[in-house]
Amino acid sequence: MTTAESETTAHPEAAGGRSAAARYRPFAPVALAGRRWPDNAITTAPRWLSTDLRDGNQSLAEPMTPDRKMAMFDLLTGMGYKEIEVGFPVASQDDFTFVRRLIERDLIPDDVRISVLVPARDELIRRTVESLEGARRATVHLYNATSPLFRRVVFGMNRDECKDLAVQGTRLVMKYADKMLGGCDLGFEYSPELFNDTELEFSLEVCEAVMDVWRPGPGREIVLNFPTTVERSLPNVFADQIEWLDRNLSRRRDVCLSVHPHNDRGTGVASAEMALLAGAQRVEGCLFGNGERAGNVCLVTLGLNMLTHGVDPGVDFSDLDGVRRTVEYCNELAVHPRHPYGGDLVYTAFSGSHQDAIKKGFDSLEEAAARAGAPAGDLPWEVPYLPLDPQDVGRTYEAVVRINSQSGKGGVAYVMSAWHGMNLPRPLQLDFVRVVQETADAEGGEITPDRVRGLFDRCYLEYPLLPIPLVFTGEPVTVELHIDRERFDVGGGRSDCVRVVREALARWGVEVRAVHRAASGSAPPREAGAVVYAECRVGGRTFWGAGADRDVPAAALSAVRAGVTRARLDRPAAVPGAASEAVPPQVGEGEGAGIPAPRAARPKLVSRR
Amino acid sequence: MTTAESETTAHPEAAGGRSAAARYRPFAPVALAGRRWPDNAITTAPRWLSTDLRDGNQSLAEPMTPDRKMAMFDLLTGMGYKEIEVGFPVASQDDFTFVRRLIERDLIPDDVRISVLVPARDELIRRTVESLEGARRATVHLYNATSPLFRRVVFGMNRDECKDLAVQGTRLVMKYADKMLGGCDLGFEYSPELFNDTELEFSLEVCEAVMDVWRPGPGREIVLNFPTTVERSLPNVFADQIEWLDRNLSRRRDVCLSVHPHNDRGTGVASAEMALLAGAQRVEGCLFGNGERAGNVCLVTLGLNMLTHGVDPGVDFSDLDGVRRTVEYCNELAVHPRHPYGGDLVYTAFSGSHQDAIKKGFDSLEEAAARAGAPAGDLPWEVPYLPLDPQDVGRTYEAVVRINSQSGKGGVAYVMSAWHGMNLPRPLQLDFVRVVQETADAEGGEITPDRVRGLFDRCYLEYPLLPIPLVFTGEPVTVELHIDRERFDVGGGRSDCVRVVREALARWGVEVRAVHRAASGSAPPREAGAVVYAECRVGGRTFWGAGADRDVPAAALSAVRAGVTRARLDRPAAVPGAASEAVPPQVGEGEGAGIPAPRAARPKLVSRR
Repeated sequence: MTTAESETTAHPEAAGGRSAAARYRPFAPVALAGRRWPDNAITTAPRWLSTDLRDGNQSLAEPMTPDRKMAMFDLLTGMGYKEIEVGFPVASQDDFTFVRRLIERDLIPDDVRISVLVPARDELIRRTVESLEGARRATVHLYNATSPLFRRVVFGMNRDECKDLAVQGTRLVMKYADKMLGGCDLGFEYSPELFNDTELEFSLEVCEAVMDVWRPGPGREIVLNFPTTVERSLPNVFADQIEWLDRNLSRRRDVCLSVHPHNDRGTGVASAEMALLAGAQRVEGCLFGNGERAGNVCLVTLGLNMLTHGVDPGVDFSDLDGVRRTVEYCNELAVHPRHPYGGDLVYTAFSGSHQDAIKKGFDSLEEAAARAGAPAGDLPWEVPYLPLDPQDVGRTYEAVVRINSQSGKGGVAYVMSAWHGMNLPRPLQLDFVRVVQETADAEGGEITPDRVRGLFDRCYLEYPLLPIPLVFTGEPVTVELHIDRERFDVGGGRSDCVRVVREALARWGVEVRAVHRAASGSAPPREAGAVVYAECRVGGRTFWGAGADRDVPAAALSAVRAGVTRARLDRPAAVPGAASEAVPPQVGEGEGAGIPAPRAARPKLVSRR
Repeated sequence: MTTAESETTAHPEAAGGRSAAARYRPFAPVALAGRRWPDNAITTAPRWLSTDLRDGNQSLAEPMTPDRKMAMFDLLTGMGYKEIEVGFPVASQDDFTFVRRLIERDLIPDDVRISVLVPARDELIRRTVESLEGARRATVHLYNATSPLFRRVVFGMNRDECKDLAVQGTRLVMKYADKMLGGCDLGFEYSPELFNDTELEFSLEVCEAVMDVWRPGPGREIVLNFPTTVERSLPNVFADQIEWLDRNLSRRRDVCLSVHPHNDRGTGVASAEMALLAGAQRVEGCLFGNGERAGNVCLVTLGLNMLTHGVDPGVDFSDLDGVRRTVEYCNELAVHPRHPYGGDLVYTAFSGSHQDAIKKGFDSLEEAAARAGAPAGDLPWEVPYLPLDPQDVGRTYEAVVRINSQSGKGGVAYVMSAWHGMNLPRPLQLDFVRVVQETADAEGGEITPDRVRGLFDRCYLEYPLLPIPLVFTGEPVTVELHIDRERFDVGGGRSDCVRVVREALARWGVEVRAVHRAASGSAPPREAGAVVYAECRVGGRTFWGAGADRDVPAAALSAVRAGVTRARLDRPAAVPGAASEAVPPQVGEGEGAGIPAPRAARPKLVSRR
């Protein structure tokens, strides 16, 4: 016991990480001539085994209660997992009782095979087989540790004794099953534990000896399962080990070659995938990577990695947030916000350049859908920075873009469009993003979509309406109008409506140079009525205003008055909160008094990507 | 925009995961004849670049404040990182200001090179170079997106225009640096963004064109950095891409081949490691894998993966919990309990078989250390289930073993030894573990080391002391004593002491059959005095008692009296809390009355591994 050191400070050796490395050895490579796996691809899903209720449960500070176990079992069968390791019956009375409950209450769907884990010892095997009495389909999963360290330090056994343990264990499983599991479609799985640290040829020798007892053949499969009980090598070395087995195992057609990767080096997913390239046919893991220490391989990540390569995982991830909630309830461990596919932040972009690209990607997809006459959801998924359509796992697009000081015009435009149904012309995006960024810089945190809309309204839309002719006497004002949401209550159609606007503005001395249609979005507006943006040129400079009203003329007039008012105040874009003293007082139409003097221009920020 | 669908339910296609797969395509493999990387091993650490302050910071809902930025910078330099990307100066005023602060206040250690990221646009490059004015050593990191999707959807550019953007950007960096960065040891890094989705030969073409401008040569390095901006392929395919570049890049000796792996498929660590096998010399990442979406590759995992293979990472991880605290403070994101090496649970075993093996591993290491006459911390690390000595990252052994209903005798023995300095004989471990397991099963949660000790004391040590001769008149009692902690206050040395015990017990009619020494642990006892365990045989059955007292005779007499009392009550191991009505009343020495009748034996649990 070195526990004496637990009360001292860290080793002096550890101080620089330098000599600490001398205590560790490289992982031995595999002599594998003509390796084939790097040229393979994953084209079909493997068989999955969930060990959430066994390996996962064993790793929890507070093991699952019976209710939490049932919730997990129901989740797994509901998602479509067909092989479920439901417990370690001799490890605790709770585990035993849960297996009995599943069988006695007939809770196991017909197409689901449960399995139970047991070490290779007589009385434990007897009791484990006993736990399965009455099951229709079940697998006994036998293991013993085969690695040199375990043979030497933990068990004090030589190779033959170690092999004999596995062989005798297999015999005992068959003996007790004969006695107790008459009507059961019995499966058998054997794992040489610490496989990755075991001499390859010894693993093979033990597996062959086990097969000699079980006698697999057509209709009588054996699952041979190879765990990286503690992950210690690079995934490519694990793949070499698996390919070596794939080449050397006898009775290969009747063997289901299974892997059980842990994640101590953070490469559990890669190890599983490369093992599949190398010949593995079955993967054991847990949802969201629960399991001892750094966890088992994550079945969610593996499944969705396949989906994003066009391979049907055979498991339903269409309500991934629901899956996550149940897993968090059962394990009492939160899923990390950056967990692939399932974390809170993994479909989110804060950075301006990412947001810009995402918005363009959505636009392009929508255009392609329009051209094809098909819903966007039917087209191949191709949006920058999003490896998966969030809707394919039951998420909406709303959280894809979130706004803070790192965000840019693309993100702000996205939020205005997706949340508020307002499609800003590009120059207005550039104008408005400065307002948002200054606010974010000043406040430091995230800016919600409602706050973005509030900033927009205060800057462009709710501007006090000045009596234009009075203010700009003698100074020519021209505008370009960008009609976003159209509603023609005045006169007849579009051209009538535009004519009304032109004439009304002309009476104010404002010339309409052009009328554009803002790039339409498919997001339904959350408010009724028309929206118009006015790009007003006064004295060689441009000032934007916006108007929302019952129809286009009313909205256009509001927009122009807002823009011209801003021109009068000479503020390219005012930040409402940050400069509240400069917000002009409400001025009634037709009144000219009380307009504050122009304010000094704010320092200009460089626009960003 | 497909945002219309954000308010509807999930696609019908997504419902079964089945047809959703049809929307995605496999990742194209690389044509690489005679691939070499799978035969390589990582034998030296790469150059590391931390992008915590740039890519990491850009991904946070609340970007770091200046104070948090400084804390991160100090952490990184303190750990020994020499290349640090400190910001994206044109992305926000905060980023710009932070770079200026580092330079103007002279906060950058002499051996540290800072870098800043900039997209390939004139005014942005000018301002970025401006942010570096006065720096002694700095790198400008230029990027543009080169992938077909970005060329088409985001920028509307053909290949030549895209290449030209990179070339012109490089020229502009040189032009502005000539003007503004006179005294600076200037470095240059170029990244073809979305490298992994870009045609390989086009990435090469752009990099070659950039090199034609920068003109790398002896003493004038170029860093070419290849990001998996969104991770989309298996890591072995990324390795093929990198080996292809390694073979085909010109001016290879003057190129530092760098990678920047993201983690969208959960294989960022594997991608980085395989890229190193394939020829990469530098890795960009973040501590604990912060970064956009599922994060950048985790520098902690990569570094400690190397350490555990005997490769010095060149970075100091000896206070990993301190690193974690700072990172959590800066990012305001918790590190997951299962994060490799740094999570709360990754050195912890709850399961009985694991605990047993760990205890034996520690024992074996200690024995080897005793044989070698060296501290255990100097010996090669080899303890089951622990890929790394927790002390090498500044952790103690105390949290390695934690007890719940899944735990076994090994774990319980470990806790008794490591926390309480009591080394139980193996049969006593088996006796006691049933008490612990029944308590854990009944209570459901984790059992702290203090609670384990409390259970032990109430079962074996604080047993009411019966007047032995009165109780067992006519029934022979023999004992074997196991002396754990010795203290010989009575008489002279060990043999005197044992003689005293034998004689005292003989007067009570109790025969001492053998005296053993309990396997000694090196954990210092937390209490003074002697501890003795008594294995009492009465009527063909065995009952354990324990005694702790000032010296061995006093402890031994207490132990025997406790054991014999338990025999009288016929309870192999009583669970104090669960059966409080059966706990005998305190009985004074010499009194024989009031002893409750024997209680029915509790159902026996199968012992576990």
